[in-house]
Amino acid sequence: MISEKLAALRKEMLLKKIDAFIIPSTDPHQSEYVADYWKLREYFSGFTGSAGTLVITQDTTALWTDSRYFLQFDDECGNTEVKLHKQSIPHAPEHVKWLCNLLKNNSVIGIDYRQFSKSQVDYILSFTNEKQIQLQNEPHFSKHIWTDRPSLPNFEIDIHPFEFSGETTASKLSKVQEEIQKQNADFYFFSSLDEIAWLFNIRSRDVDFTPLVTAYALVGKEKTLLFCDKNRFSQSAITAFEKLHIEIVSYDSIATILPSVTNDKNIITDSSSLNYAVFDAINGKFQYQNSIVKELKAIKNTVEIQGEENCMLKDGVALTKFFIWLEKELEKKSISEYELGKKLESFRQQQEHYVGESFAAIVGYKKNGAIIHYTAPEQGSSIIKNEGILLLDSGAQYKDGTTDITRTIWLGGTPSEKIKTAYTSVLKGYISLEQQQFPIGTTGTQIDAFARMHLWQNGLNYPHGTGHGIGSFGMVHEPAQGFATGPTTARGTTPHLANQFTTIEPGCYVTNEFGIRIENIVLSEVVQETEFGTFLGFRPLTLCYIDTQLINVTMLTNKEIEWLNSYHQEVIKKLTPLLNNNEVSWLQNKCKPIELS
Amino acid sequence: MISEKLAALRKEMLLKKIDAFIIPSTDPHQSEYVADYWKLREYFSGFTGSAGTLVITQDTTALWTDSRYFLQFDDECGNTEVKLHKQSIPHAPEHVKWLCNLLKNNSVIGIDYRQFSKSQVDYILSFTNEKQIQLQNEPHFSKHIWTDRPSLPNFEIDIHPFEFSGETTASKLSKVQEEIQKQNADFYFFSSLDEIAWLFNIRSRDVDFTPLVTAYALVGKEKTLLFCDKNRFSQSAITAFEKLHIEIVSYDSIATILPSVTNDKNIITDSSSLNYAVFDAINGKFQYQNSIVKELKAIKNTVEIQGEENCMLKDGVALTKFFIWLEKELEKKSISEYELGKKLESFRQQQEHYVGESFAAIVGYKKNGAIIHYTAPEQGSSIIKNEGILLLDSGAQYKDGTTDITRTIWLGGTPSEKIKTAYTSVLKGYISLEQQQFPIGTTGTQIDAFARMHLWQNGLNYPHGTGHGIGSFGMVHEPAQGFATGPTTARGTTPHLANQFTTIEPGCYVTNEFGIRIENIVLSEVVQETEFGTFLGFRPLTLCYIDTQLINVTMLTNKEIEWLNSYHQEVIKKLTPLLNNNEVSWLQNKCKPIELS
Repeated sequence: MISEKLAALRKEMLLKKIDAFIIPSTDPHQSEYVADYWKLREYFSGFTGSAGTLVITQDTTALWTDSRYFLQFDDECGNTEVKLHKQSIPHAPEHVKWLCNLLKNNSVIGIDYRQFSKSQVDYILSFTNEKQIQLQNEPHFSKHIWTDRPSLPNFEIDIHPFEFSGETTASKLSKVQEEIQKQNADFYFFSSLDEIAWLFNIRSRDVDFTPLVTAYALVGKEKTLLFCDKNRFSQSAITAFEKLHIEIVSYDSIATILPSVTNDKNIITDSSSLNYAVFDAINGKFQYQNSIVKELKAIKNTVEIQGEENCMLKDGVALTKFFIWLEKELEKKSISEYELGKKLESFRQQQEHYVGESFAAIVGYKKNGAIIHYTAPEQGSSIIKNEGILLLDSGAQYKDGTTDITRTIWLGGTPSEKIKTAYTSVLKGYISLEQQQFPIGTTGTQIDAFARMHLWQNGLNYPHGTGHGIGSFGMVHEPAQGFATGPTTARGTTPHLANQFTTIEPGCYVTNEFGIRIENIVLSEVVQETEFGTFLGFRPLTLCYIDTQLINVTMLTNKEIEWLNSYHQEVIKKLTPLLNNNEVSWLQNKCKPIELS
Repeated sequence: MISEKLAALRKEMLLKKIDAFIIPSTDPHQSEYVADYWKLREYFSGFTGSAGTLVITQDTTALWTDSRYFLQFDDECGNTEVKLHKQSIPHAPEHVKWLCNLLKNNSVIGIDYRQFSKSQVDYILSFTNEKQIQLQNEPHFSKHIWTDRPSLPNFEIDIHPFEFSGETTASKLSKVQEEIQKQNADFYFFSSLDEIAWLFNIRSRDVDFTPLVTAYALVGKEKTLLFCDKNRFSQSAITAFEKLHIEIVSYDSIATILPSVTNDKNIITDSSSLNYAVFDAINGKFQYQNSIVKELKAIKNTVEIQGEENCMLKDGVALTKFFIWLEKELEKKSISEYELGKKLESFRQQQEHYVGESFAAIVGYKKNGAIIHYTAPEQGSSIIKNEGILLLDSGAQYKDGTTDITRTIWLGGTPSEKIKTAYTSVLKGYISLEQQQFPIGTTGTQIDAFARMHLWQNGLNYPHGTGHGIGSFGMVHEPAQGFATGPTTARGTTPHLANQFTTIEPGCYVTNEFGIRIENIVLSEVVQETEFGTFLGFRPLTLCYIDTQLINVTMLTNKEIEWLNSYHQEVIKKLTPLLNNNEVSWLQNKCKPIELS
């Protein structure tokens, strides 16, 4: 099947005199999750991971992805002609140099300009010069091959109300307009779907797992153009927008209206999200800077914080009820990983304002837990019994917030010392990072290692970053702050500020044995001001017990035991009013304090 | 005096139609410490700090330096027309943008090409385009002003013997020649004086505090040119070099011989040390990469490690005797900071293979300790009595190694809780970083915060990096590994490898009150190999007691107390054979174990 698609594409390439194709995993908005229409890389390779780039020549089919997806790649592409190229740095465009080395002088690389940001094309062009390799825009290359390609999404658009957003569109727009004035520019252009959703307080379901709207936005000093299909809005929304001087023009008119409006004007934009097709079509002068909306959006207001705290109650209740159900269920029978994911979803569905999962839940039993972004297949996933270890990473979109939580639990039998050492080291790492106090502006790379130090001490580690920002009824992976080992990702280099949501999620993965991860969402808050500056700390928002069966208590300091007992007290206190008596007893048992040594 | 020099320079600028001058603190080899001949910035500004850039126009005299030197600047330049511009990032060329904003279209900036690296000029050129600002090479601009300019150094050159270097020049050259082959190049060109000193096993005293030789080197596949004055070498050295196909040609011939030899050839070099005058004179094709010698040199061989351990015994003995002397001396009388520095030097002078100080000792009594790179003036330095706090940062060049150590001691009276909290937090930070185990390749920024975490917890911090590499009878600040808060310095981004010398030196500085710093040199060693990789740890090499009078013992964990007691046992064990009975008793008292809680 994959080979037929690739053969057809190669025929097309010969016709168009294209020597190589680069097919990324994204859409014209540099989205992480994309509408089905944009799943070109999956169509031509069979690989469904959220990150990965496919490169096709007449002789080779190569896919670049990072260590999170190596095992998944083997599962999905192991029997195809697609060859895995392991990225040493996640998201790094390592294929570009490789491809330019491979190609002969004057070769032609085909790409769909819309799927590449200005920055990405600049990067490619820095390698193509030497051999006079040409880039060719190919927006229709799959037209005669992918004949049943889905259409672009056209769902109804909801206004995200003030009770959830905490800030009006008028207020948000005025901040952008201030920036336009300050920079002596004429317009601010936005491509990122989550930035547009935040700025206009709009939500829909164009993209898997994320309540986004396919659109572009051009904010002017007085007037704003929102490129999005008008029939998706209610009349009252259209009227409200008109009052704010926001005109809704069709999504496709980006190619015609935008160039004429911006001709010779100064346009501020973020080159990491501006796609090259838009860049190519415009005669205005771009001023590149980090998107102001990305920065504003990362700082949560009191309504968003309150909303997230509500969501944590809901997630906490759903997970508690789910774990109680699971314990009873496994006493009677076994259950597949896939079914378990569905069951977990059903508990969240009962919660107020539930919209859907915020990503494909990871239900990894025993050795499957070691596949970092594992998705249990609908058919033939592992059968879970009342023994061994289970990793559960899941989250939800509620109208008042987005959640993401990982717990690793022990289902029965006696855990090995190896598992307990790894689990306890992960837990100690979580506590260590969460308990830090640090100067405002500290970057993720500076403090990432607090989550690793105890693993390192035992010769252990994990091959991913330690956490990411999270949206408010938005993207589960929200830029830009987080924790990472180096400066190649914004999660490493972005300063932490007050009132941000970030996950802390250290792990440990032993291939063919087990996977462990513990993840909470934390809120950054100002905790001290001194002559040396303003210091931040993290407060955990997630409310769910942490399995103590896997802890080697002798490895914990009294401070760590105190942290765990106090966290568990908080979980009990917050969830008790929302559970029945039996559930409370069960939870109290799970949260039984550990004795100090 | 400064104003007269500046007036003369401004006259010169008018004559030469130069609108601005940039005068950096370096020499043609991008050295940190430079020969007197190159102290142009000090000559025109009066500022003696080791980092800082002077910018002069007809209307302004501006000096950029970082927070380590703010107080020193006030002392040295407070009464002059020189205005301080505070760098937000140390060593960042923040003056370039400022100057290009200030200047009109088609202005001319004068610089001495020799004092700027290729990278630095490229950076300047990235700002000059917009206004068509021109760079003009002015190697002789001070000729008619600085009439008593010292001449270039011409001291005898010593061969650094195998008993100290542990590797022959032949072996070192062959590694460079292998790299030339590997990269399909013709030559490897070296500008850094410490790289040349290492590669040829040569030492002299051209530069303050550092046993370097003013030279360039061009290594070919078979033949090598060393640009250095031949009369500085012994005949036996010349003969030995001839056998290795090393030809010594005069330093000045760099301008004539180098271009002809390298014409149309491929030359590997490091653009961060290549000066622009050499770059400008050469027609060959440069291939830029991080200097291989920088990388090789940072990994110490067993002879160098043994040498450093010897030096630590010598430093330990000298400091112990010095501290005993100081305690007795202060019972009788007071002593100035300046005299104390001289006295400390005299104790080191008695040690075998002593050559000189490795930097200007910092003797900071009470509030002077808060001036991070303080130099006590010969006249009028503070008078030290037997009370209060004293910071001592000093080091030596011995033929078998280079040292650098800081201790902060309490001289009498009752220390405040504030001082004890700060001191204990600094000590805890030192222990925390030194005790880490981490994967090989971990960068300085990833682990720097272990030294800060306890300070941060108390709302404290320090405005400098946490440590640097150190040479073997070489530079006290040796590239490239170290510990820093961000990626703007190599100390932040360079992977730590096994068998490197690095300092760990957290501190805490309260302006007008006190300064605290504790600094040891540590050796990185492989401590564990697992399926997750190779893990390194640090072993302290420095042997000198840590004052316990300033410790708030209740802030220490038992693990930290155990570390301190065991470090002190090691100090006693290693130094006892080299001290007399009274000295040993004194040391044992200083190293008295702290009881566990």
